[in-house]
Amino acid sequence: MKKINAEQILWRPNKKSSVPLYQQIFQFVCNNVSRGQWPVGTKLPSQRSLSKLFEVNRSTITTAIEELTSYGIISGKSGAGTEVISNTWSLFLPTTTDWNKFIATGFFHENNNIIQEINRLEFEPDLIRLGTGEIDPSLFPQEMWQKVLNRLGTKVMSLGYLEPLGLLELREALADHLNAEGLNVDADNILITSGSLQALQLISAALLQRGSTVYTEAPSYLKSLQLFQSMGMELSGIPMDNEGIQYWKLPRVTNKFNNILYTIPTNQNPTGITMSMERRRSLLDFCIENRLPIIEDGAYQELCYDDGQPKTLKSWDKNDMVIYLGTASKTLAPGLRIGWIVASKPIVQRLGDVKMQMDYGASSVSQWVLTEFMNSGLYDEYLEELIRKLRNRRDRAVRSLSKYMSDIATWNVPTGGFYIWLTFKSKIKIEQFFEQAVKEKVLLNPGDIYDFKHSRSLRLSFAYITEDEFERSIKKLRRIYDK
Amino acid sequence: MKKINAEQILWRPNKKSSVPLYQQIFQFVCNNVSRGQWPVGTKLPSQRSLSKLFEVNRSTITTAIEELTSYGIISGKSGAGTEVISNTWSLFLPTTTDWNKFIATGFFHENNNIIQEINRLEFEPDLIRLGTGEIDPSLFPQEMWQKVLNRLGTKVMSLGYLEPLGLLELREALADHLNAEGLNVDADNILITSGSLQALQLISAALLQRGSTVYTEAPSYLKSLQLFQSMGMELSGIPMDNEGIQYWKLPRVTNKFNNILYTIPTNQNPTGITMSMERRRSLLDFCIENRLPIIEDGAYQELCYDDGQPKTLKSWDKNDMVIYLGTASKTLAPGLRIGWIVASKPIVQRLGDVKMQMDYGASSVSQWVLTEFMNSGLYDEYLEELIRKLRNRRDRAVRSLSKYMSDIATWNVPTGGFYIWLTFKSKIKIEQFFEQAVKEKVLLNPGDIYDFKHSRSLRLSFAYITEDEFERSIKKLRRIYDK
Repeated sequence: MKKINAEQILWRPNKKSSVPLYQQIFQFVCNNVSRGQWPVGTKLPSQRSLSKLFEVNRSTITTAIEELTSYGIISGKSGAGTEVISNTWSLFLPTTTDWNKFIATGFFHENNNIIQEINRLEFEPDLIRLGTGEIDPSLFPQEMWQKVLNRLGTKVMSLGYLEPLGLLELREALADHLNAEGLNVDADNILITSGSLQALQLISAALLQRGSTVYTEAPSYLKSLQLFQSMGMELSGIPMDNEGIQYWKLPRVTNKFNNILYTIPTNQNPTGITMSMERRRSLLDFCIENRLPIIEDGAYQELCYDDGQPKTLKSWDKNDMVIYLGTASKTLAPGLRIGWIVASKPIVQRLGDVKMQMDYGASSVSQWVLTEFMNSGLYDEYLEELIRKLRNRRDRAVRSLSKYMSDIATWNVPTGGFYIWLTFKSKIKIEQFFEQAVKEKVLLNPGDIYDFKHSRSLRLSFAYITEDEFERSIKKLRRIYDK
Repeated sequence: MKKINAEQILWRPNKKSSVPLYQQIFQFVCNNVSRGQWPVGTKLPSQRSLSKLFEVNRSTITTAIEELTSYGIISGKSGAGTEVISNTWSLFLPTTTDWNKFIATGFFHENNNIIQEINRLEFEPDLIRLGTGEIDPSLFPQEMWQKVLNRLGTKVMSLGYLEPLGLLELREALADHLNAEGLNVDADNILITSGSLQALQLISAALLQRGSTVYTEAPSYLKSLQLFQSMGMELSGIPMDNEGIQYWKLPRVTNKFNNILYTIPTNQNPTGITMSMERRRSLLDFCIENRLPIIEDGAYQELCYDDGQPKTLKSWDKNDMVIYLGTASKTLAPGLRIGWIVASKPIVQRLGDVKMQMDYGASSVSQWVLTEFMNSGLYDEYLEELIRKLRNRRDRAVRSLSKYMSDIATWNVPTGGFYIWLTFKSKIKIEQFFEQAVKEKVLLNPGDIYDFKHSRSLRLSFAYITEDEFERSIKKLRRIYDK
């Protein structure tokens, strides 16, 4: 086993550099390993002698060693001495690829910690998830699911690759479904995707350019925005009022190619706002006039609890102005990983080609499951029942808020979807509030992870938890507020 | 409706440019539409007057108009006059995004036509697909599938999002399965992907860099190579002999960061060659010495028909040198869209993070189906039977070749997988041969779509068609050859 002679190391960290000392040491070790100077099995000098050699604190060495260990480059054993255990893939991790650069920087950077904490805490079993934008697993239609699987057992005879656009039977069922909602499409206008997130990825990869600007509601949906940024797009948030996006506040739209508008007009995430009929019409006119194409995210379109909901933008679209996105994740089950893109045929063709190069299409099993749900009528039956239940949850949620929050906060009453956007009347320290709530076993989604600036809002979801859990959480929040 | 006054058009195509005239005209129309000079509904001048105006042949105008129509930018109606029908998304199509640039150029460019023809012809029902690298749909285990679905109907209670690495039960089942094959992994070393193609995409996005060189066997697997190119990697083909890749022919490996080797050591696609034990050991030593990390594609690893198959490279890997890829597509069903990446934990973690940003994980339904197949023992039972059947097919295929081809061609006898690599002793005109075969209702995969240079080889697959279909096709090929 090779041992490094500390005296032969001439390199020293640069104490005047803006790069932290531990990172310089980390990089120095990486370089020696990657150049082959320190092959696998090489023993590193002790932490004490490294600290002396580099003239830095012992804690700086410890941090560098921990970093190297977490990347799998050296073994973490101390005492017997640390040694090099990898000289290849692990060394690729710290390098900055385009992708990593984009996910590490930008827009959400300052909130990364709280988002990561939410992601982690979502797997803790005894927290009440007051902000989760998913449907309550207990609302999953188990009996229907069983029927559907039993039928597919005899109906599906093999599971080969499907056509580039996805299972024809599913696209036909979706076309019927969408036409009943006022669209005018056929199966060839539809591309099945592995969820809406992938739909955005396909559009970004095939139609947009690095540096395209994506205009969107502020606040808006966390994860789609990250995707755009990962693909090198710029984001620009446009304020909303109760009728939806205030498109007239868009910066003077230049004719620069490939800027777009991304909107969730119905039951918006996270505000719950539904764009009015009037706003929809004038937005479309504005976009036609300014040649600003639209991605309409219809994730919550089917979840309307009151009468008189305006139709999709796509249903008034005569000019190929709108690409419409749908998904089964918000109604039936996210685990299906099935979404759909509705657009003109040349667009759908192109996106389908790109999809084939990414993953050869979405799961055939998932596509068959959704097809059977739709064609059997079970989906409509389920949806009706789901809407009834979620309407109850919304009504109870609003009552709970009135009971505990009316003097200290304001909120909208959403006409559908999952979300109530609650804003405190006076400033609160949102991070402390979040931490305090976690201690009380309530997991929150603070508003500042959706907005371009910090805020004193919360995204409340009444979809994931029961009416009683919602009320109990609100009561707790009030108590925390009063402390 | 706005009508264009042809006399006001001052632009003329540049006849000295290397850009074809029709393309200049196409771009001119696009520009006018995208700038808003010609809004939706604008009527274009007649083809005759355009031809006069631009001083070009009528056929040039026709080509430009056809192109504009196919992109959905103008209506194809003639007679009544063509008009602008879109001013947005369709105009994004002709622009060169990074992605399109990569898929349009490079490596496979010259063969694009034949690949596209194969893709198209695969949907023709009465062709015998002698080259298709999929498992025969009639070998799908219908009864087992039915059992599995029935059990999942009662076992699975909801379909939410899964952990970033994929369903724990599946990863545990795979770990057991892989450990039985000589690996030494646990569930945290495994990331479930939406097929192997996505695995390559994740590795490219998260670990490689634009300009990284991917060394690989020549000839090699068509679609993975395209993926690398789409992501901006360079490809370099290394020759093979009967024991596998001749790594000593690698160009002098520089220490430039993030070059890698991609290999299918077992039952290689398309040659059917299995790397010898000796070659595996010396390749690993070479890669360790040169710090050249390896992606080992084990797609055909489980499909070995003879005794004494060497173990995976990964099973000898002590240095984190190998990322191993597995898939259910070649054994059970491509429609599941399930693959897996086996690597060290830090690598798996990082790739899992990137996957979550791409599509939130693979279909839960597919993951449950495979889990149930594996945990019930049905998968092993099925695999044993499948190997028996495919061994028969291979044996019959080799006999058919001996009967009809032994004086004019050579081939290997593969010890597993799907493929026999047939090489004609004398030169043939491969494109004519391909077309002639299609006329005789046989669809071929010519060797030159897998290789860096043209060749006189064919990839024959005995997996997709029956023994008799194979023999009949070979008989036909002999007849075509003799003509």
